[in-house]
Amino acid sequence: MDIIKGFPATSQDNYQLNVTTIIQHAARSFGQQEIVSRRLDGSMFKYTYSQAHERMKRLANGLRSIGVQVGDRVGVLAWNSHENYEIYFGLPGTGAVMLLLNLRLTPQDLAYVIDHSGATCIIVDETLLPIAHAVAPLCKNLKAFVIITLPGKKLADVETSLENIYSYEDLIAESAPDFEWPHMDETSAYAACYTTGTTGKPKGVYYSHRDVYLHSCSIGINAEISTTDTYCQIVPMFHALGWGLSQAATMVGARLVFPGMYTLDKLEGLCKIIVDEKVNVSAGAPAIFMPLLEYIRGLDKKPDLAGARLLSGASEPPVAMMKGFWDLTGAEIIHAYGATETTPLVTTNRIMPWLADKLTEDQKWELKKKQGFTVVGLDIKVVNALDEEVPCDGKTPGEILIRGPWITARYHNAPETEAQFTKDGYWRSGDVGTIDEYGYLKITDRVKDVIKSGGEWISSVDMENEIVSFPAVLEAAVVGITHPKWEERPLALVVLREGEKERITADDIRNHLAKTFARWQLPDEVLFVDQIPKTSVGKLNKKEIREQYKEMYLK
Amino acid sequence: MDIIKGFPATSQDNYQLNVTTIIQHAARSFGQQEIVSRRLDGSMFKYTYSQAHERMKRLANGLRSIGVQVGDRVGVLAWNSHENYEIYFGLPGTGAVMLLLNLRLTPQDLAYVIDHSGATCIIVDETLLPIAHAVAPLCKNLKAFVIITLPGKKLADVETSLENIYSYEDLIAESAPDFEWPHMDETSAYAACYTTGTTGKPKGVYYSHRDVYLHSCSIGINAEISTTDTYCQIVPMFHALGWGLSQAATMVGARLVFPGMYTLDKLEGLCKIIVDEKVNVSAGAPAIFMPLLEYIRGLDKKPDLAGARLLSGASEPPVAMMKGFWDLTGAEIIHAYGATETTPLVTTNRIMPWLADKLTEDQKWELKKKQGFTVVGLDIKVVNALDEEVPCDGKTPGEILIRGPWITARYHNAPETEAQFTKDGYWRSGDVGTIDEYGYLKITDRVKDVIKSGGEWISSVDMENEIVSFPAVLEAAVVGITHPKWEERPLALVVLREGEKERITADDIRNHLAKTFARWQLPDEVLFVDQIPKTSVGKLNKKEIREQYKEMYLK
Repeated sequence: MDIIKGFPATSQDNYQLNVTTIIQHAARSFGQQEIVSRRLDGSMFKYTYSQAHERMKRLANGLRSIGVQVGDRVGVLAWNSHENYEIYFGLPGTGAVMLLLNLRLTPQDLAYVIDHSGATCIIVDETLLPIAHAVAPLCKNLKAFVIITLPGKKLADVETSLENIYSYEDLIAESAPDFEWPHMDETSAYAACYTTGTTGKPKGVYYSHRDVYLHSCSIGINAEISTTDTYCQIVPMFHALGWGLSQAATMVGARLVFPGMYTLDKLEGLCKIIVDEKVNVSAGAPAIFMPLLEYIRGLDKKPDLAGARLLSGASEPPVAMMKGFWDLTGAEIIHAYGATETTPLVTTNRIMPWLADKLTEDQKWELKKKQGFTVVGLDIKVVNALDEEVPCDGKTPGEILIRGPWITARYHNAPETEAQFTKDGYWRSGDVGTIDEYGYLKITDRVKDVIKSGGEWISSVDMENEIVSFPAVLEAAVVGITHPKWEERPLALVVLREGEKERITADDIRNHLAKTFARWQLPDEVLFVDQIPKTSVGKLNKKEIREQYKEMYLK
Repeated sequence: MDIIKGFPATSQDNYQLNVTTIIQHAARSFGQQEIVSRRLDGSMFKYTYSQAHERMKRLANGLRSIGVQVGDRVGVLAWNSHENYEIYFGLPGTGAVMLLLNLRLTPQDLAYVIDHSGATCIIVDETLLPIAHAVAPLCKNLKAFVIITLPGKKLADVETSLENIYSYEDLIAESAPDFEWPHMDETSAYAACYTTGTTGKPKGVYYSHRDVYLHSCSIGINAEISTTDTYCQIVPMFHALGWGLSQAATMVGARLVFPGMYTLDKLEGLCKIIVDEKVNVSAGAPAIFMPLLEYIRGLDKKPDLAGARLLSGASEPPVAMMKGFWDLTGAEIIHAYGATETTPLVTTNRIMPWLADKLTEDQKWELKKKQGFTVVGLDIKVVNALDEEVPCDGKTPGEILIRGPWITARYHNAPETEAQFTKDGYWRSGDVGTIDEYGYLKITDRVKDVIKSGGEWISSVDMENEIVSFPAVLEAAVVGITHPKWEERPLALVVLREGEKERITADDIRNHLAKTFARWQLPDEVLFVDQIPKTSVGKLNKKEIREQYKEMYLK
């Protein structure tokens, strides 16, 4: 990007965008607003922005007292609690970097992340000490541990093998309530999250103060959240900054609810706090909303969530899930798109007023499945294999490239990842999709899963969905297999329902596909199998399938 | 401000905040959204963001073709039209500075502003040519004029003595529709407005791209405006960037309405467009809302503006005005505070949820008169004469100091104004006020009008309001007069109603005041006069009063 200098303005140009501005604003303008937290022992805790701000300042002094300096990286291994919220501002407010640790990683990966970041200290929930115990011996530089003990519990009573331990509550209680937040250069790191791809080591994304401030503005504008809303932090706060919603909700002075610990198989507590605290804004993945809906479906008295807005990300929200929430609770699911590398908000899906009248109910549900339109401040483009932009016609797929103030421009200390960024500052998302004439983005595939045949792309996901819509089919996977002439050609693996195996032929599948796909797109081979290889989290293991059949079209 | 460098982040740090990002976003995500304009011949014009964006790019090419370069200053003398909206993006989008010219200034002041800025070109509405004719001969550097002719009118048919004239429509029609907006360094000037104090020459405030981008975010968050709203640009677009609302409304994709030309004595057209186009968000001063309410009061059928939000600034909105709009139309008046130097949004007034239950209806109306709470991103403090912060108790007054990314840090090329800024980057607003324990700002006076007595401040405005609440009083002015012992002491000038002159004494006034003021605050002298000196715009001329009575307490 060539940047051109114009005529000098008179406005303040050295006032830095800092995340601490957000909490200072909240304490000043929304000081009486309530924050509700379910503690890890199940008890409820309530206080105000003003009180939270005082505890954040005490925490900052406490962290300083144990040696945390500007630029230090400090790990956080915690559930969605008010303490974690305090850490979100109090820790990076000192000028240190908050390294958010995904408690579902293996100890080996966690140790890699901690050492790669150079963290010397970790703040950990007492209930997560078993993870810390497994990880600490693998790390090279860890010098201190701050333990968030269970309510009322003394540090001396905590069972731990860790050394150099401090009590989070004692640090707060014993530190002074005055702390002047330093004016950090806005390009300084505020926090870090590591992405966990299916291959390779975790890669570090370090968010700047400027990045997070601007991202919070963007959410404030696009999610239309305000002082009269109650926001519940369902997204784990270690996933892409908790999707940046705690900071954005603080910026607008919303009432905050932290649900503490919850697991997918035990959603009673999460559902109860949403209802009891009249939550009307939240965010999460279908992975949480689907079981939550199932839980609600089983209730005699369905919760009334009329007017609630639930941002759903990470994967496409099924229409059945969106309709389920709407019909049973009155809550609207809003599809949003992003990634660890994008802080994460890139798009949100709203049905624009000029479309609302033109669409049938069914068309509206279909539209709501799309990722939505790009928020202000970001550049987005869809490119073919030659990095040329493809038309925004809702049909021509390409890789999604994203650029903007809160998009990562590199991975921390990982020169081998350079190819994931373009020379003009775009991040290659690895997602394949289309943008339609109204500006709606739809993700159709991952780049590595799309089939590149004769210079054209074929969506493996679309083809799988179409095959599964054939009544005799239970499950299907489509992958691209190397082909001497066409680069790749599709191969379909199909699991048929019981009793259909004798009856159905490969041509039946191809004929079914021919209704929606061009002839040249149809799979050269359709193999009927008993089961399809899966990953440990239950996704189709396309890497393994490709490996297994790699010579199929070379013979 | 000491700025501290922390650990380097990986997010994009050279992506500049540019105002053109806003219109590009709108054209991409809200391309079908409607823009409505009442042209200067009274006819209506409608098009979309997408079409407006194309015309802006043509305009940029057209301006380049007549020699407008990066960094040039170009004056704009225009009503609130869609053309002015196009100029708002198309002109500064080239990298030039949009110099907004207040068409109510004297030709001498306009010529001063134009020459002080170094502008070489002016864009002018045909209906405003008489002003251009008076101003142009007084200017040193003007080389070209772009005339926005009345609809359908050819440049050759325009009567003008100006030379080097171009037609705005021809420039657009004859220029290419492709223009790549340059990435301007975000601290570069986007536009300039000159303040017009009652004393001294106009002072130039040059807004940066960063400033305006962040300010638009702030309005997007605080005014809670969205794609489903229809925003009408009532504030003249030459007053402090039209209060930044056109840009903010574009950022969120609101429907836009430009009312063209209107005058205070003929509000039928303005009222009609608000009703016809279902406007639900707007902004203006009581100077326009008061006559608009009077006009509405005279209508048989009151317009239904239920749910509409009207931001009111420039002076305190009278309760009667706020109640009037609420009762007659259903529109809510929201008090907001700012100045040319602040882009302008500093505070907005919303009744916070935690206050709503505690207040009576009357208390709510009183609260709504306050300027409100400071928006996110700004620092504000109230200081005494020694620049020490006073307590936020809603009682202790001081001067309001403001700092932040969209607050001016100096006046352009005006070293003599240095004292209006503190060393740590605050702008001295010249306004006196208080902040209460909830964070609400209330402006009580101008610094130059407050009475400094024995180290304490007495509000002249509060005292005037209290005197006028005495039934026998028609009008009052209170000023501080130099006193040998107390520095200043209050003097009250009072105009009594007909028939009261024989009956009322100075002690009656003082006894009335003693109900709400401390004894030491009461005016030493209360003089009954036939009339009070006024300025040309009808305000109390306190400067003249102080001059006239300056020796009163020295005798």
